[in-house]
Amino acid sequence: MIDKGKIKVGSKPLDDYLVSAAVMFNQGISKLTIKGWGDSISKAVALYNALKDRMGDAIELKDVRIGSEEIKGRLISYIEIDVERIY
Amino acid sequence: MIDKGKIKVGSKPLDDYLVSAAVMFNQGISKLTIKGWGDSISKAVALYNALKDRMGDAIELKDVRIGSEEIKGRLISYIEIDVERIY
Repeated sequence: MIDKGKIKVGSKPLDDYLVSAAVMFNQGISKLTIKGWGDSISKAVALYNALKDRMGDAIELKDVRIGSEEIKGRLISYIEIDVERIY
Repeated sequence: MIDKGKIKVGSKPLDDYLVSAAVMFNQGISKLTIKGWGDSISKAVALYNALKDRMGDAIELKDVRIGSEEIKGRLISYIEIDVERIY
C-alpha cells in the first residue's frame, strides 16, 4: 500500500489541487507533502488552509520547510508542507 | 535593549525588506520574525532565502508557521518565519 503522496502546486487553479488531495486521501494515503516554488508558494499555503478548513481535525500539520534550490541554473525559493491524515 | 524584530512583507520591493532586516540586525536584534499574507507569502520566503544567501551561518531558521487569519472579515493565508541572528 502506498501511504505517501506529494502534490506539486503550480499554475493550475487551487481547486484542481484540492481534488488531487481528496483523491489521494480516498486512496488511503496518510502522509501528504505539498510543495510549491516561487510565486506558487502562496498557493501551496492556500491549499493547506483549504484542506484544513474542510477536513479540520482529520488532518494535522506535521512540518513546514522553506529554502531554495537550483532549477535550470536559477535559485528558486520553495516551501514543503507535510500534512498527515488522521484516520 | 530590544532583541526582537518583526518585518511585515507586503507590496514593496524585496530589497526594501532586506534593508529593514539589515538595519534591525545592526541595532542588535537577535530574533527576527518575517510575516507575509496572501500573495506576499512567496516574497516572505524569498526574503528569508536572500538573508540566508547573504548571511550564511550568521542566521539560523528557527521555526516556520502557516495558517489563516481573519482580516476585515476575510480569511487570509499567512506565513511566519522565525530567524535568529548568531553573534
